[in-house]
Amino acid sequence: MIIVLRPDATDSDVNHIVERAKKLGLTPHISKGTERTIIGLIGPEDALRAVPLEAFPGVENVIPILAPYKLVSREFKKDDSVVNITDHLKLGTKKIILFAGPCAIENEARLLEIGEEVKFAGASVLRGGAFKPRTSPYAFQGLGEEGLKILHRVSKKIGLPTVTEVMDPRDVGLVAQYADVLQIGARNMQNFNLLKEVGMTKKPVLLKRGLSCTVKELLMSAEYIMAEGNHNVILCERGIRTFEDSTRNTFDVSAIPVVKQLSHLPIIADPSHAAGKWNLVGALAKAAIAAGADGLIIEVHTKPEEAMSDGAQSLLPEKLTQLMHDLERIAQAIHREI
Amino acid sequence: MIIVLRPDATDSDVNHIVERAKKLGLTPHISKGTERTIIGLIGPEDALRAVPLEAFPGVENVIPILAPYKLVSREFKKDDSVVNITDHLKLGTKKIILFAGPCAIENEARLLEIGEEVKFAGASVLRGGAFKPRTSPYAFQGLGEEGLKILHRVSKKIGLPTVTEVMDPRDVGLVAQYADVLQIGARNMQNFNLLKEVGMTKKPVLLKRGLSCTVKELLMSAEYIMAEGNHNVILCERGIRTFEDSTRNTFDVSAIPVVKQLSHLPIIADPSHAAGKWNLVGALAKAAIAAGADGLIIEVHTKPEEAMSDGAQSLLPEKLTQLMHDLERIAQAIHREI
Amino acid sequence: MIIVLRPDATDSDVNHIVERAKKLGLTPHISKGTERTIIGLIGPEDALRAVPLEAFPGVENVIPILAPYKLVSREFKKDDSVVNITDHLKLGTKKIILFAGPCAIENEARLLEIGEEVKFAGASVLRGGAFKPRTSPYAFQGLGEEGLKILHRVSKKIGLPTVTEVMDPRDVGLVAQYADVLQIGARNMQNFNLLKEVGMTKKPVLLKRGLSCTVKELLMSAEYIMAEGNHNVILCERGIRTFEDSTRNTFDVSAIPVVKQLSHLPIIADPSHAAGKWNLVGALAKAAIAAGADGLIIEVHTKPEEAMSDGAQSLLPEKLTQLMHDLERIAQAIHREI
Amino acid sequence: MIIVLRPDATDSDVNHIVERAKKLGLTPHISKGTERTIIGLIGPEDALRAVPLEAFPGVENVIPILAPYKLVSREFKKDDSVVNITDHLKLGTKKIILFAGPCAIENEARLLEIGEEVKFAGASVLRGGAFKPRTSPYAFQGLGEEGLKILHRVSKKIGLPTVTEVMDPRDVGLVAQYADVLQIGARNMQNFNLLKEVGMTKKPVLLKRGLSCTVKELLMSAEYIMAEGNHNVILCERGIRTFEDSTRNTFDVSAIPVVKQLSHLPIIADPSHAAGKWNLVGALAKAAIAAGADGLIIEVHTKPEEAMSDGAQSLLPEKLTQLMHDLERIAQAIHREI
Repeated sequence: MIIVLRPDATDSDVNHIVERAKKLGLTPHISKGTERTIIGLIGPEDALRAVPLEAFPGVENVIPILAPYKLVSREFKKDDSVVNITDHLKLGTKKIILFAGPCAIENEARLLEIGEEVKFAGASVLRGGAFKPRTSPYAFQGLGEEGLKILHRVSKKIGLPTVTEVMDPRDVGLVAQYADVLQIGARNMQNFNLLKEVGMTKKPVLLKRGLSCTVKELLMSAEYIMAEGNHNVILCERGIRTFEDSTRNTFDVSAIPVVKQLSHLPIIADPSHAAGKWNLVGALAKAAIAAGADGLIIEVHTKPEEAMSDGAQSLLPEKLTQLMHDLERIAQAIHREI
Repeated sequence: MIIVLRPDATDSDVNHIVERAKKLGLTPHISKGTERTIIGLIGPEDALRAVPLEAFPGVENVIPILAPYKLVSREFKKDDSVVNITDHLKLGTKKIILFAGPCAIENEARLLEIGEEVKFAGASVLRGGAFKPRTSPYAFQGLGEEGLKILHRVSKKIGLPTVTEVMDPRDVGLVAQYADVLQIGARNMQNFNLLKEVGMTKKPVLLKRGLSCTVKELLMSAEYIMAEGNHNVILCERGIRTFEDSTRNTFDVSAIPVVKQLSHLPIIADPSHAAGKWNLVGALAKAAIAAGADGLIIEVHTKPEEAMSDGAQSLLPEKLTQLMHDLERIAQAIHREI
Repeated sequence: MIIVLRPDATDSDVNHIVERAKKLGLTPHISKGTERTIIGLIGPEDALRAVPLEAFPGVENVIPILAPYKLVSREFKKDDSVVNITDHLKLGTKKIILFAGPCAIENEARLLEIGEEVKFAGASVLRGGAFKPRTSPYAFQGLGEEGLKILHRVSKKIGLPTVTEVMDPRDVGLVAQYADVLQIGARNMQNFNLLKEVGMTKKPVLLKRGLSCTVKELLMSAEYIMAEGNHNVILCERGIRTFEDSTRNTFDVSAIPVVKQLSHLPIIADPSHAAGKWNLVGALAKAAIAAGADGLIIEVHTKPEEAMSDGAQSLLPEKLTQLMHDLERIAQAIHREI
Repeated sequence: MIIVLRPDATDSDVNHIVERAKKLGLTPHISKGTERTIIGLIGPEDALRAVPLEAFPGVENVIPILAPYKLVSREFKKDDSVVNITDHLKLGTKKIILFAGPCAIENEARLLEIGEEVKFAGASVLRGGAFKPRTSPYAFQGLGEEGLKILHRVSKKIGLPTVTEVMDPRDVGLVAQYADVLQIGARNMQNFNLLKEVGMTKKPVLLKRGLSCTVKELLMSAEYIMAEGNHNVILCERGIRTFEDSTRNTFDVSAIPVVKQLSHLPIIADPSHAAGKWNLVGALAKAAIAAGADGLIIEVHTKPEEAMSDGAQSLLPEKLTQLMHDLERIAQAIHREI
């Protein structure tokens, strides 16, 4: 940690910081420049994070050097992590995994119909929401436990594992009974109690990036889950909130290589929520694969006009099938497969 | 609702939309221009919100006309709402209310010391966190129930009601036992299950704006609480996330008059979290009052260097006392008091 | 254009708007709902743009229906535009074009060295700045006309056409003498006098998106150039400014398919400025190609350590060569070539 | 400057940096921690800014310590700068200055009418645009030189000095003949050649913050003007671009106290452009004064419905007069006057 002092900082200010640092087991290095004095603190930076050094007299700025995350970091684990979705399905290998399905579970017949279509198109995991976080209290909130049961039955019928969102710490046990992967939605990326709760299960967790969260904060949220003992974390870039209004969110494709540099965790992309329009999903899916994503999660609906949520961004199954042909070629181009 | 059709939309596309609208009880008005056909739909717009009109063939754009919130809107209730924090303390009147105290409850002696100071300076409500949402799992997470008990005892001793954050739907009952106002933090503004849970209590709720949430989304989250029957909602502007890095967040002072136009609910400002630095808190507090805020929530600490959270943005009690003198003068200037 | 009236708008407010609209040659359609009256105005929307309808009594909101751009729009011209950089080099075809070179022209030997390397790697256009827009007045501002002359001589020697930035309307003639493509930098995207000036030449213009400009504003700036008679406009996505700080800017890959939907103009990508770090350039370049970009502009330097500008984001020539192999495979995957 | 090395940096990487730093006259301090080695470089940081240290082998991150601006900084000049608009009108004193007038100069009668009204309301400077930067090439672009002449004549008649925007380096001399203060608009804040040109005059310059520019970049642009010898710079906060859409821009009121801490230059606020709606202008104006602004620039029109630009955000003169009464009281409350 680097402490930059104000030009008017006194020797006593410097000593005060140095003494506090020493008590915490750090070794201070003082560099006096003509305009500023700087104190470098060598040692366990964590001890210092809890100390509000900015509040010390004479301090202008405090610059941390080490990343605040540990378990998620590439330094902690050099090799890419592979998450076992089931015994037979691994995410984070050469094989790119497709999660697909409707935004919300509407009824069993519809989910079965969509599930069979996405499986045919090449999806390995069926998505579908039973608990829906909606901006309006008057919007369809999902079928709840009934939805989970439908998801489970359809999963068995078509032979695909499932991912579904859990929004409430009280529901984690319930959702874990029915689904193979627990999804933490963008609005809950910093719902820390929920993160802890899914961290106490053994289930793979699909952690979506919050609309206004940095990549580093995404990694910190993954750290919450891992710190509880669950290392099966899959990150997901799904667009951030910016001033641009031609898409629902701004798909931050750079997050994919940045995560790969900073962390060993796999990352997938959600082009549907980023774009908000089905006719942009293909381009974003291709971009994500080219940039190194380990998977995709795409909303698909057989009757978008009747979708109870996010119809405008849902692909028809035949569009997904077409897209998969393009994605296969791109995956091969970068020596992967899908 | 206005449906803008694509230039290549067919008559059959138009008829398809018109029929669907009629079934939902809406009256369509078709306007054919040289470049675009537009369908205006008159009637209960809510019925349409659930229909993904963007997914209909020929549709280019769907423009809602009515605001999606009802109970929170100025149209629903013309007069300013007043929230009773206690039988004797009202928020939303001519009198501006100060909430002050430490970021986190650290121990009873410290809270008592700070509580007495802020009461002396003019605060009407004591703030202090028992459950702390922290970006890092390794940071101090608050004292939990023990903290609530301390808060309650100090509240009785100094004779100030209290506000504290609740982060988990499971804790709402517990927190409601000890605190007078339930705070929903910025990261939980769209934790809809938590909103519903506090909506089922009778306690006043202090709802903080999310870092990347629009004013309209803030109102929608208030709508969640009110839809459950709890109309005692206090909104709070605390800064939004932007590219500017000289402050921790960008204090959106415009949100205050915008809320006053759109809603009858009272709104307060949190200059401490917006600024992130104590030496900017005063200017933002003054700006908030001048812009029409009904209250302020300010972090205060007697030993910022020893604060377990947010020391850098905490005011010393003597600075708060000075600031209150300035605020009194500004309040008078706009015919209010503090 | 749609005029939404306030709930308290009077008949006289409606009549006032209707009369004004009729005078401008528009046909009003009035729809009275239970909560709002709406006036749809059919006809030449441009006539209305100059009228501040929001300032009329009773008006709550004004919603334009038609895009404000014309010449750049896909509706104006259905087929993709092809820009002739030289008689033998076209941009906007199946062939993806690489622009590469140093950020700044430093001296002739260095530019020649880099130019030969990028040509060898597969670049078709040499980039290099003679006029450099720098945040600091004390930073290297470019060699100016001397730089242009060097660029011209190196261009002749290696046989590659060139692109270079023009920052000042007074320099357009000068730069046009030496360079094949005139670049408008991100900070000048809304320097409207400069746009008009390059619009009056016949030279291809590379128009970079401003850091905080929407795609629609980018198209409006292209419209400025085209309105002066120069239809040889190449758009460029180079990252926008957001809260994310792990990259210099946020590369908005969605802009590529969005532009393709709205406009017939070709669009290229600048992964170097978006990323700000050389080790992210490859992933972004691949994503851009996969998303449909017609070209790339990449900073390359043989001695990044000695670069006078943007060394950190410059690729070494050997890295560019490697990257080109990957890009070739991705181009083939989407039935293009590079 | 602090150089943070990668965990895998070698001794030879360290030596390479150390030698380069020594050649530039800097003194390196090496601190070896368990996880990272850090090199602090003491001495003239400017020499290093031109060296792309991020491009050196083994470097993870480069952290500048000193601000890149000099002449604008509070360290360079402790006391607040006062800018003489005329011999009798000073900005940056206890007296808060109001600039008011129409967005665009439309004709002499109208400008005279508005000018007299704003003078009556208490304005000290008349604003009015002759050159208008408009997003669309088809929008009214201003009267140009004819507008300047009108501005000059009205100025003489009513006895108020004037401010008007200059958009083109070629027009600086012309505008300087007619106007008392040269305005650099938000879109030109980083039009560096224009900044240099106004820096070569003696006229006061009103420098508006760019829509996506940080406060530090605003100061760097002021540095450009001052570096040319013109120290009469007035900064202006006018809103930044964010995701929030209930206002045209987000008024960053914090910029006012931040500028006061970092710089000696005066700063005014433009609530009209920030809000985009006349009925929010009052609240923002009050907030700006309370936060410490040295002046305000407000758009006023006697017939907003007929305004050729920005009618929706223009105040009627009677609203300005009312507002001034409130502002007087707030100014007094903070021991200033208006």
